[in-house]
Amino acid sequence: MTGSPTAIAMAAQVRSGQTTAVTLCGRALDRAEALGRERSGFTRLLRKRAMLRAAAVDKLVEAGLDPGPLAGVPFGVADLFDVAGEITTAGSRTRLAAAFASRDAKAIALLEAAGAVLVGTQNMDELGYGFVTMNAHYGTTFNPHDNARVSGGAAGGSAVAVATGTVPISLAFDTNGSLRVPAALTGVIGLKPTYGDLPRDGVYPFVESLDVVGALGRDLDDLALVRTVLREGAPERSDTLRGEIAFGRLLSWFDDNISEEMRAPLDAFWSRLGRIGFELPHSEIARAAASVIIAAEGASLHRPALEADPMQFEPPVRDRMLAGLLLPSDDYLAAQRFRSWIQGRLRRQFELADVLFTPAAPGFAPLISDPVMTFEGKSIPARSHLGIYTQPISLMGLPALVLPLAGDLAMPLGIQLISAAGHEPLLFRAARQLIEKGLCAVPAPPA
Amino acid sequence: MTGSPTAIAMAAQVRSGQTTAVTLCGRALDRAEALGRERSGFTRLLRKRAMLRAAAVDKLVEAGLDPGPLAGVPFGVADLFDVAGEITTAGSRTRLAAAFASRDAKAIALLEAAGAVLVGTQNMDELGYGFVTMNAHYGTTFNPHDNARVSGGAAGGSAVAVATGTVPISLAFDTNGSLRVPAALTGVIGLKPTYGDLPRDGVYPFVESLDVVGALGRDLDDLALVRTVLREGAPERSDTLRGEIAFGRLLSWFDDNISEEMRAPLDAFWSRLGRIGFELPHSEIARAAASVIIAAEGASLHRPALEADPMQFEPPVRDRMLAGLLLPSDDYLAAQRFRSWIQGRLRRQFELADVLFTPAAPGFAPLISDPVMTFEGKSIPARSHLGIYTQPISLMGLPALVLPLAGDLAMPLGIQLISAAGHEPLLFRAARQLIEKGLCAVPAPPA
Repeated sequence: MTGSPTAIAMAAQVRSGQTTAVTLCGRALDRAEALGRERSGFTRLLRKRAMLRAAAVDKLVEAGLDPGPLAGVPFGVADLFDVAGEITTAGSRTRLAAAFASRDAKAIALLEAAGAVLVGTQNMDELGYGFVTMNAHYGTTFNPHDNARVSGGAAGGSAVAVATGTVPISLAFDTNGSLRVPAALTGVIGLKPTYGDLPRDGVYPFVESLDVVGALGRDLDDLALVRTVLREGAPERSDTLRGEIAFGRLLSWFDDNISEEMRAPLDAFWSRLGRIGFELPHSEIARAAASVIIAAEGASLHRPALEADPMQFEPPVRDRMLAGLLLPSDDYLAAQRFRSWIQGRLRRQFELADVLFTPAAPGFAPLISDPVMTFEGKSIPARSHLGIYTQPISLMGLPALVLPLAGDLAMPLGIQLISAAGHEPLLFRAARQLIEKGLCAVPAPPA
Repeated sequence: MTGSPTAIAMAAQVRSGQTTAVTLCGRALDRAEALGRERSGFTRLLRKRAMLRAAAVDKLVEAGLDPGPLAGVPFGVADLFDVAGEITTAGSRTRLAAAFASRDAKAIALLEAAGAVLVGTQNMDELGYGFVTMNAHYGTTFNPHDNARVSGGAAGGSAVAVATGTVPISLAFDTNGSLRVPAALTGVIGLKPTYGDLPRDGVYPFVESLDVVGALGRDLDDLALVRTVLREGAPERSDTLRGEIAFGRLLSWFDDNISEEMRAPLDAFWSRLGRIGFELPHSEIARAAASVIIAAEGASLHRPALEADPMQFEPPVRDRMLAGLLLPSDDYLAAQRFRSWIQGRLRRQFELADVLFTPAAPGFAPLISDPVMTFEGKSIPARSHLGIYTQPISLMGLPALVLPLAGDLAMPLGIQLISAAGHEPLLFRAARQLIEKGLCAVPAPPA
C-alpha cells in the first residue's frame, strides 16, 4: 500500500474511461496550489499547458485510441528541465534573464509521448549545489513528515511532490546524491540510473562527468515503467541471475558517521539479509575525488556568470565556485584517474555480491532552523555533507535505488541499493524482494 | 625515386628469395652503427634480437611459407615504445630505474607479425617535451641534410633513421606535431592518424587526450601498408569522393609567421592547386588550448617523479611541468570545451574542401648552435614553438600527412595535408596526386 494511486493504476483508469486525464491533472494542480510552494515542492504550476494536454489525452481515449502506458498521469520535473516557453531557472537568480527554452527537455517529451502530463516544475538547491533545498530565491521546501525539517536536496521539491502524493512521479537529476538524499529524507523511492543511461538533452548541466537524469516515485513498477519509456527501447542487459540475490553491505566509509536513529534499523535490516559485509578500500577518497570533480566542473561552467555578477549567487554557492576556480588541474586529473581505478576495483565486489547496500543518508532529515549533521564527532553543515554515502557511488557511475526502511520510525530513513553498471533490472528485482519481505515500505503521504 | 629501396620492395625481394632478412637487417644495423648515435637517430641497437628474428623470417621463406607483407623489413621505434626486456626510457633519466618492459608494444608486435624486424630504438626530446631532439641525456640528433641543424622533434631520431635511408619505416608518436615537425625538417613522409585510430598499448604516454601512434617513411605505399597492418582489419571508411580532389589552404593563423624561405615555394604550390583558401576563426586559440591540455596532463602524469626528484628532469621540461601543476582546472576544462567547439566548426570546412593544407613547420630546420625561430617578429626558442601549425590539428584530432615540397631547396620544407577524421584513404590519394604532379618529392638520403 502506497497510500495514493500509482501511475500505472491512474493510466489504467484513464485508458478504460473510469476517470479522465483532466480530472487527475486538475486534482494534482489543485492539491499543489492548496499545499502552497513550501509544502508542495512546486515552484511553478503549468495549469494551462497541462489542462490542454490532458484534454488531448482524453480525446484520444474517446476516439478509441490508446494515449500510451502513462495516459493522463500528472508528473513534475525539477527546475532544471527545459520546458518550452519557460525560463529554465536551475533554482538560481542568475538565470532570470536567460532565454525562454525553445523546446521541452527530451525526457519530458518522452513521458508525454507515453501519455503523461507535465503539471509543473519543482524546487531545488541553487544550480544543484546543496543537499537541503533551502533556496534563497525560491524558498525552502518543507519535509512533509515534519514541516520543521528539510526535504533534502538538491531535488527536494521533486521528492516532496511525490511524498505528499501530489504527483506519482517526478523527474529529477542526480550528480552526487541530488535525488537519492531527498528520497531518503522524505520516504519515497529514488532511481539514480547508470551514468549515461537516460537522456540529458535539455537538462541544465551541473557536472558533466557525473550528471544523470533519474526519477522519484512511490511505486517500483511506476519507476520501472518510466525508465523503460525514457530508454526508448535501448537494448537491456537481461537479468540472468539464477536463484537468490546475494546482498552485501558496504562497510568502512559507509559504516562511519551513521546517526543514532539509523544504527538499529540498519543493523536489523542487515541481519535479515545475512550480515555479509565488504570493505571497499579508499572509499573516502572516492568522496574526495567526486568533490574535486564537482568543484572544478561546476565552477568552470558558471565562470562567465560569476565574472559578470558574482553577487547574484547565493553566498555558499559563490564561495564553493570561487574555490573551484582556483583548483589546480592536476587535482582534477588525479580525481579522474582515481575514478577509473575505483571503478575497476568495485567491479570485483560484484563477483561476490549481486547487490550492495549502504545507508542513503546518515539519518533523519535535519531541522530547517539548524541544518547540521554529525560527522567525525563534529557538527557540520548538512547543506554540503548529506551526500557522504551517495557521492562515491556517483563517482563510480553505478545505478542505485533508494528505498524507505519499513518500521515504526519517527521520520523516514533510506537504504541505497547498488548494482553493477547497466544492471538496473536486477536492482528492481532486489527492491521488489525487500518490499515483499516487509523490509522496505513507502510510508503513506502525511495527511 | 626515393633513393633507397622501399619496404614493399624489400619484402618482395625477401619473399622471392632474391635477398634475405638477415642481409637487410644486418645492413641496417651496420649503417646505424657506422653513422653513430647523433647521425643515425638510434640510441639503442637490438642486434641480437633483430638477427634472431630475421633468421626466423628467412627460415619461413626457405620452408615455402609467407612471413607476411613486411617480410624482413628492418624498422625502428621511438624510445617510448615498450620493447620486451628493455627499459622504456622515453628519453628521460627519470626512467633509468624503471622496470624492464614485459612485452613489446602492440604496434611493434603487429608489424613483426607481418614479417618486419625491429632493429633499434630512437632518440626523442625528453618525455616528448620539445621540437628539437636536443636531449641532455641521450644527445642531439643531427639533421642529415645539414649536421649543424636540428632534426626537429620530439621524434627526431625516428625521422632521421628514415631520412638517412637506414630503415624504410619508423614508428613514432605525435601529441602535438612530434612526428610531423621532424618529417618536415628532414624531408620524409609523416603519417599522423586520426586520434584513436592506431593502438597505443605499451607506448609511454605524454598527453592522453592528444597522443597518437604514427609512422615515418620515404614511400606512401609503405606507410599505407603499415597503417593497414596496425589497424588489424578495422573497418575502413571508403573513399567515395568522385572526380578531382578539392584542395584548400588554411589561412589566418596558418599563414602567419611563415619564414622567408617557405613563403615562395608555398605560394607556388598553392597556385598549382587553384589558390582556394579558408579562414578558420580562432585557430590561435586552438594552439593555446592544446598547450593548456599538454601542460596540465603532462605535468599531472609526471607529478610523482617530479616530487621524488625534480633535479632529474631537464630544466626546460621541469619548468614547464611545474607551471603545468599550477594551472587552474578551469583553464583545462575551458580548453577541452573549446576543443569540442572547434571540432564542430572545422567539420564545416570539409564541406567546402576535401583536403586542407598548411605548412608543417615555419621553414628550414634551425641551427643546433642557436635553435630559435621568428614568431611575430621576435626570435623565440624553437624547442617549444616549432609546432605552431601542427598543434591545432592535434587538438582537432584530425589525420594529417606531411610531405616534402619538391624543388631545388637548400633544406627540406614540409606541407601538412589534413582530412576529416577517419578519411586517411582520401589523404593518401591526395598525397599520391601531389607526388605524381611533381609538387611533392622525398629527397634522396644525403651521402
